[in-house]
Amino acid sequence: MTRRPRKTIVVLSGGLDSTTLLYHLLDAGHTLKALSVNYGQRHSRELRAASEICAITGVEQRVVDLSGLAAIFGHNALTDKALDVPHGDYSPKTMAVTTVPNRNMILLSIATGWAIASDFTAVAFGAHSGPYTPYPDCQPQFAAAMNAATHVCDERSIEVLAPFIHWTKADIVKRGHELGVPFELTWSCYEGGDVSCGKCSTCVDRARAFQESGLCDLT
Amino acid sequence: MTRRPRKTIVVLSGGLDSTTLLYHLLDAGHTLKALSVNYGQRHSRELRAASEICAITGVEQRVVDLSGLAAIFGHNALTDKALDVPHGDYSPKTMAVTTVPNRNMILLSIATGWAIASDFTAVAFGAHSGPYTPYPDCQPQFAAAMNAATHVCDERSIEVLAPFIHWTKADIVKRGHELGVPFELTWSCYEGGDVSCGKCSTCVDRARAFQESGLCDLT
Repeated sequence: MTRRPRKTIVVLSGGLDSTTLLYHLLDAGHTLKALSVNYGQRHSRELRAASEICAITGVEQRVVDLSGLAAIFGHNALTDKALDVPHGDYSPKTMAVTTVPNRNMILLSIATGWAIASDFTAVAFGAHSGPYTPYPDCQPQFAAAMNAATHVCDERSIEVLAPFIHWTKADIVKRGHELGVPFELTWSCYEGGDVSCGKCSTCVDRARAFQESGLCDLT
Repeated sequence: MTRRPRKTIVVLSGGLDSTTLLYHLLDAGHTLKALSVNYGQRHSRELRAASEICAITGVEQRVVDLSGLAAIFGHNALTDKALDVPHGDYSPKTMAVTTVPNRNMILLSIATGWAIASDFTAVAFGAHSGPYTPYPDCQPQFAAAMNAATHVCDERSIEVLAPFIHWTKADIVKRGHELGVPFELTWSCYEGGDVSCGKCSTCVDRARAFQESGLCDLT
């Protein structure tokens, strides 16, 4: 039996999780392309990080401008600059104001379209587990449902890969360290600045993951 | 038991199927909003038709500019003006060149995001049956898989409605006639002109549907 070649589109934000995912899949022998999306996020700084990672690894990247999506995302701190990005630990309230509605389904559906157009076989995203109230679209049942949908959306069946879905962010940091991921190039902060604020929920979350993994964040 | 109010986002291209769907759901008592998307299609004339339908019916419409998607759709006659739109009956070859990869999943995922942001309960699309090789993303199993995914993508469960999925296009024409749909305002032609060409697959398909239903197309 010949194995189907593993040709995968990675949804790459330029953050710690998706960057480690890219290295993880390269290590597993996948041929990769990376999809990054400008959806009107105030922290578009992450897109620069994504491009740097692709330049280093030689992975073909497309940055698709979907900033028109901001028109339907309503009041959300990630796309609406009139709202403040909340600081401190993630909480249900924090998560509500930083959730771009249905972002993962939108990104996976576009990645799947690109996979079909490229004759690729899979799409991958960096959803992971954690101690806080989880985002519904980072859960195993969401990944499984999307995997079922991408198997019937075209003549060619596309697989959804989410290898970190049961991992904590600290597990991802440890794996990234093993793989030599240049964490200092990745970008997590939700604020729109050029230097990470260290205060918003995702900065706090990242700092804790490094602390738990016993590693140092050079960002 | 109180019924959950039916608040639905309709994916509205401005064509015959989605316009009849809008009238069909209004007739069934739904509160509607309409999502129209510019994804780089050469027949953007259909967007004007969609806006006219919304103006007549008083349905709130958003036209989202996702023309950046054209960058990942590869060689496709609907988005790549270097390719000719095929003429004559639909066939597997015709359909391959006019299929925007994963278009329905992309549109439904964006509609679902808007439904979540609007506290709406459902999204609807005009997929239907037909005598030719069917598009995979117009099939009942695709609609069912998307419905399963939209039930777990957020705290709020969103339903996917596809009431025409077992209907032929002629059935839709008959239903539209009953409902008084202004067919002359709808737009089907894939060519980029201001007058329908009458030759491309979708024009041929539309003409046959009117013929089968015994009605006259005033377009």
